[in-house]
Amino acid sequence: MGMNVAQKVISAHLVEGRMVPGEQIGLRIDQTLTQDSTGTMAYLQLEAMGVDQVKTKRSVAYIDHNMLQQGFENADDHKYIQTVASKHGIYFSKPGNGICHQVHLERFGVPGQTLLGSDSHTTTGGGIGMLAMGAGGLDVAVAMGGGTYYINMPKIVKVELQGKLQPFVSAKDVILEVLRRLSVKGGVGRIVEYTGEGVKTLTVPDRATITNMGTELGATTSIFPTDEMTKTFLEAQGRGDVYVELQPDADATYDEEITIDLEALEPLAALPHSPDNVKKVKEAEGIKVDQVAIGSCTNSSYLDMMRVARILKGRTVPAEVSLVIAPGSKQVLTMLAENGALADMIDAGARILESGCGPCIGMGQAPATGAISLRTINRNFKGRCGTASAGVYIVSPETAAVSALEGKLTDPRTYADRVDLSVQLPEKFFVHDNMLIPPSENPETVEVIKGPNIKDFPVNEALGETVEGKVLIKVEDNITTDHIMPSNASLLPFRSNIPHLSNFCLTPCDPDFPARAKANGGGFIVGGDNYGQGSSREHAALVPLYLGIKAVLAKSFARIHKANLINSGILPLVFENPEDYDALTLMEDLIIENAIQQVKSGRVAVKDAKSGQEMAFRIELTDKELQVLLAGGKINFIRQAQ
Amino acid sequence: MGMNVAQKVISAHLVEGRMVPGEQIGLRIDQTLTQDSTGTMAYLQLEAMGVDQVKTKRSVAYIDHNMLQQGFENADDHKYIQTVASKHGIYFSKPGNGICHQVHLERFGVPGQTLLGSDSHTTTGGGIGMLAMGAGGLDVAVAMGGGTYYINMPKIVKVELQGKLQPFVSAKDVILEVLRRLSVKGGVGRIVEYTGEGVKTLTVPDRATITNMGTELGATTSIFPTDEMTKTFLEAQGRGDVYVELQPDADATYDEEITIDLEALEPLAALPHSPDNVKKVKEAEGIKVDQVAIGSCTNSSYLDMMRVARILKGRTVPAEVSLVIAPGSKQVLTMLAENGALADMIDAGARILESGCGPCIGMGQAPATGAISLRTINRNFKGRCGTASAGVYIVSPETAAVSALEGKLTDPRTYADRVDLSVQLPEKFFVHDNMLIPPSENPETVEVIKGPNIKDFPVNEALGETVEGKVLIKVEDNITTDHIMPSNASLLPFRSNIPHLSNFCLTPCDPDFPARAKANGGGFIVGGDNYGQGSSREHAALVPLYLGIKAVLAKSFARIHKANLINSGILPLVFENPEDYDALTLMEDLIIENAIQQVKSGRVAVKDAKSGQEMAFRIELTDKELQVLLAGGKINFIRQAQ
Repeated sequence: MGMNVAQKVISAHLVEGRMVPGEQIGLRIDQTLTQDSTGTMAYLQLEAMGVDQVKTKRSVAYIDHNMLQQGFENADDHKYIQTVASKHGIYFSKPGNGICHQVHLERFGVPGQTLLGSDSHTTTGGGIGMLAMGAGGLDVAVAMGGGTYYINMPKIVKVELQGKLQPFVSAKDVILEVLRRLSVKGGVGRIVEYTGEGVKTLTVPDRATITNMGTELGATTSIFPTDEMTKTFLEAQGRGDVYVELQPDADATYDEEITIDLEALEPLAALPHSPDNVKKVKEAEGIKVDQVAIGSCTNSSYLDMMRVARILKGRTVPAEVSLVIAPGSKQVLTMLAENGALADMIDAGARILESGCGPCIGMGQAPATGAISLRTINRNFKGRCGTASAGVYIVSPETAAVSALEGKLTDPRTYADRVDLSVQLPEKFFVHDNMLIPPSENPETVEVIKGPNIKDFPVNEALGETVEGKVLIKVEDNITTDHIMPSNASLLPFRSNIPHLSNFCLTPCDPDFPARAKANGGGFIVGGDNYGQGSSREHAALVPLYLGIKAVLAKSFARIHKANLINSGILPLVFENPEDYDALTLMEDLIIENAIQQVKSGRVAVKDAKSGQEMAFRIELTDKELQVLLAGGKINFIRQAQ
Repeated sequence: MGMNVAQKVISAHLVEGRMVPGEQIGLRIDQTLTQDSTGTMAYLQLEAMGVDQVKTKRSVAYIDHNMLQQGFENADDHKYIQTVASKHGIYFSKPGNGICHQVHLERFGVPGQTLLGSDSHTTTGGGIGMLAMGAGGLDVAVAMGGGTYYINMPKIVKVELQGKLQPFVSAKDVILEVLRRLSVKGGVGRIVEYTGEGVKTLTVPDRATITNMGTELGATTSIFPTDEMTKTFLEAQGRGDVYVELQPDADATYDEEITIDLEALEPLAALPHSPDNVKKVKEAEGIKVDQVAIGSCTNSSYLDMMRVARILKGRTVPAEVSLVIAPGSKQVLTMLAENGALADMIDAGARILESGCGPCIGMGQAPATGAISLRTINRNFKGRCGTASAGVYIVSPETAAVSALEGKLTDPRTYADRVDLSVQLPEKFFVHDNMLIPPSENPETVEVIKGPNIKDFPVNEALGETVEGKVLIKVEDNITTDHIMPSNASLLPFRSNIPHLSNFCLTPCDPDFPARAKANGGGFIVGGDNYGQGSSREHAALVPLYLGIKAVLAKSFARIHKANLINSGILPLVFENPEDYDALTLMEDLIIENAIQQVKSGRVAVKDAKSGQEMAFRIELTDKELQVLLAGGKINFIRQAQ
């Protein structure tokens, strides 16, 4: 039976399992990338695993998130990542070299290969025919060490693109249309594969905009086939040799299918506060705009920027609008500086920011109170821009630029009579990789520099015969990872400092918990239903590990947090009888005897150490998870496997 | 008798007093400028004074300090300043348009005029023959309202420049040499006036670098004569019509005199942590460099940037060095983007920052722990860069650029054989003032927008017959304005929010003071010797005013803080018998009867309300200060005078 593109790449990398939707599969990872906000932890984990040189075909450490450097922490993180990368065989992309996804596409992406990145928008690589996925830092560290990456085999959704986009309608409008139709949950458990005649009309950067924001669908990833357009792009990057053709077989099948007529698409906007709250720009036209931000991994390519420059050239941003533009990479910025496009932007009154994530992640350029901000980014969640009262609209670069000039949300097609947007890809991109630092040829001589804010990563011990301790906290239903490990602006610079973060663990529930945990040398957490929901942050397991938490006893667990607890060697135990929750009291002494045998059996009895009274718990684990737990977490498991 | 240049400008603006060093003189102010970190308060004060339209020839409100915008506060400040400027006849320079001093020189500076700015480096204007001085926000607000600016007539120091600088030695080295000779206290009570044949060899931007850093001498200001060089610069800015020749008379005299042989100067560096810790670069050569930052109001002109670009062109910054460059204005940035110089910088691996103060004021780009940072800025105080353990070296752009390439502090003359630095001023600067917004032509229609962080400015009441209250705090000798009003990174965004700041007033001495002051509706502060030393911040008087402080009873006052107290209508009373300090106790009830008459007499008796026992105090005031105090502060005084 014929295969689609996603299946072809998966099957070529399949280490374990069958390509049946929902079944677990193991994938070999060819390339990895990290950014700096997740990267410090990923490399601490790599070090903890004892990996000497990475075993991937290519691993790259980018700096693009924390570039404001308001204190020593950011620069220390940069230096740590630079030295640890050099020592372990990893390329280092200096701050200023650009946004990881943009640079990776330009300089490293290879069609048909797998890419795992510690950033959710790693899916951008699908634009060049990679199977590119975001994951937690530990998964990426494991992949760097040559380990398999496990997911459940997704369904494959075919998006058939017909026709060709009208002028002033662009790739951003395509993905906004997909979001309008499928919603932010529509991609969960799915890979979105683009096909059809319309694909040929989209350049690689256009395709990357679309696969980038596939993440907002909740999709595992998105992927385009490769063709002459892909080859041309790679050749223009001086990398034509890595091109391989990837097309679905004629008899390929898909699990689901939708069709989009590019010809009929109009400029769209995602209104506050969700990427799937999509309307036609015409429907929301006229809203007064305070700020316009063009850039981010979604829309900062050379083509995007050239179109923006053409719109701005010879015109002027009105007094009331702040227009900020962040070209996506050093390559893009150099080319714009050389061909006069950057001068056109500046002349029109744009503020030019460094090539980095910047406003998209709330790193600067927070709008004024109650302001309306049009942005070419991928997420417009409430408050993400840094200003809770602001309304962020997600739009295309064309809509953003025209609206900036008009001072109000404007359908960019109103400029069709005066601006020619037929920008072509350059025959040769400007290539000068002096901010991409190759790893050391003498890694043994490299000293890894850890500033005072970078602390060693906590590693658990193998599960013992007896697990004991006190109930250190008892919390309610629906505790989120934001409760377990708060992550606000004042804590973000400490993402590589677990000891410091530990002072804030579960403090929204009980300010005394960290001190109590430390005073008692660790113990147990008691939770309600849906414990650990929300963000996937690993810190919500690493910090309890640091505090000596042995097990969490809960009515039920959120899926990702349960996986993170297992990766940290913390037992996720589920009450057999939820009413037993009521009987547990703070500072009660608990003991689990014959713990190894019990955990293997899936049934665990927890005893009150004084009364000897027992409570029954379940622990549901795959074989692999069981091995990880017995080893005392994933790091130990990997170490043992080496 | 002949006059020097400083005397000529002063005498042309003299409203009161005689030009005798040490005597108070009143000056008419032609122009004002503000930046955003001091500007919000200055405009709140302007509003409080009831000034409708400014009475200066030109007033400009710049945004250049707080441009990172990590929360809504910065953008709200920008919007407030933009609207209040528009309403009151003030030009507004949008964020991104550049650093106030650079832009003011380019677009507004007029030889022979006076300029008062709420930024200490306003002295930059001396490069174009202005009498340009930094002052507190209230002084600038008063000047905008047409009020006189009072200083003590400074001594005039002649700096005779002979010969011509060698290639790769530049204006920065001249002012570093002056600092080496005179020290950071050498300019106190003085105006530094440059003369001699060497002047002709320095362009206006070169001269501005020198007058800018005159501030580090402690000087009131610095000034250059005007000549063909000045005329050429103004003509290239399209402003040749404002040129006037200003030369010292042949028989002009000076109070002091030094001579500098430009020919003999070598590249210099101010070592950590003081601008006068000056050595030859050769003497400190070879120190490994982690970061190089080029920009700031001292060295971000077109000429500076072009020289840097020439050095960087075709070369590359090594992996271990982070080079950041912030061109000084939109004009400079546009020209660099148009002529390819910016592309050369980016290509070499430089990070390009927005045109603003940035790293110089610790707004971003804090170096790593223990790092060495070479900077073209004006101050290298410990910790100012954002990293307390870093060492900042002040150098010229040439030294900075060459050292960035070499990865170590390097005498730039080593590049003399390979780089031609004979950059000329352009015949025409690129002029497009679309980020300089003129004030509204219909000011009555402008709504001043104050975000939730911008609170009204507290205004006192006229001094009453009876002043009474409790002793709310009793502090020791040498209390600084940092004790009275702490100013750290978390409080800086609240510079326009006195109610919020009031919760931190004197808390380093007593955390309960703000609550006690509020609970008792204000009262008295008891201080020791040298009360209010340190930074000149007005907030150290405004916040006590907000808390209802009626008088400070101290053994002695620091000069500027005493003036700020008077401007806020708070009585600065000095113990006649310092040992009386010991007798005062916390929460004691005090009363001053016949306060107006007593203050007029200069002798004030303060009674214990219960025992009736009296203590004797002095209050030393000029006639003007007395009027200000009786009116209840400077705002009220100005209002009455209108």
